Amino acid sequence: MSGSGENGVRWLSDAEQASWRAILRGTRLLEQALDDALGDAGLQLSEYEIISMLSETENHRLRMSELAAMVVQSRSRLTHTAKRLEDRGWVTREQCANDKRGVELVLTPGGLEAVRAIAQVHVRSVRDNLVDIMTPEQFTAIGDAMGIVRDHLDPHAASGR
Amino acid sequence: MSGSGENGVRWLSDAEQASWRAILRGTRLLEQALDDALGDAGLQLSEYEIISMLSETENHRLRMSELAAMVVQSRSRLTHTAKRLEDRGWVTREQCANDKRGVELVLTPGGLEAVRAIAQVHVRSVRDNLVDIMTPEQFTAIGDAMGIVRDHLDPHAASGR
Repeated sequence: MSGSGENGVRWLSDAEQASWRAILRGTRLLEQALDDALGDAGLQLSEYEIISMLSETENHRLRMSELAAMVVQSRSRLTHTAKRLEDRGWVTREQCANDKRGVELVLTPGGLEAVRAIAQVHVRSVRDNLVDIMTPEQFTAIGDAMGIVRDHLDPHAASGR
Repeated sequence: MSGSGENGVRWLSDAEQASWRAILRGTRLLEQALDDALGDAGLQLSEYEIISMLSETENHRLRMSELAAMVVQSRSRLTHTAKRLEDRGWVTREQCANDKRGVELVLTPGGLEAVRAIAQVHVRSVRDNLVDIMTPEQFTAIGDAMGIVRDHLDPHAASGR
């Protein structure tokens, strides 16, 4: 994918290609490491993200459609993930009070307890494999740059997500 | 996950938490956008990565075990991906010449042609959703920082990956 000019395609320079490969591979390895850390607690990063998001809302509930957009999962994948969390007693699915076609995911007291315990494992792995292995300036720089990507791809989302 | 002190856990500060959320969400949205762009060509990013890696080796072949490590996929997931690529006639699976238990994935001439055509679509989406929406310094900074993560998590790998 490196080189330039041919057919009007703006290929990546060698330096850009090296950066892009580092981003892709670093991101994959990081996700795998975070998954492995949570695996000791018996769940995947995608599952933790959901109960974590629910724990931060005022009444511990979110519409499935909104949650799917927040964690960037397809509705079908989220349905499977929610089912696994439901089987563990950490969430329940309820009809929205003000919209009979809508379904909300609700964190149970047991689910809240689980989030609080597992958050300690998760934050340690985020520190060990990302935050604490680089300078604060480097970590902030990735956050700022990926914030640009997020806002570019999802301009209507609340900025806090 | 924000706050600090409790139980000796070093929670992320609010600023660190905001950066981490931007990284996680930006990364997910980027992967989805790259997948969507390749979807028009009928394949997923994980499939493209494999034929792209094969196209860059001298004789267009790699051991399955090595390829799995390069693209950070489990062996079982890679086997499924390889099967889909084989069904399209883009790769074949062959026994290693010097190791009867090893299996290599080999890019076919049709697969090479496909990589070359699809690379144009892929590089455009990488530019549109990442490289060209930030300053060169910001892009380089993400590459450098994620290179640190890569080398931390996979210290024995060749640096070129």
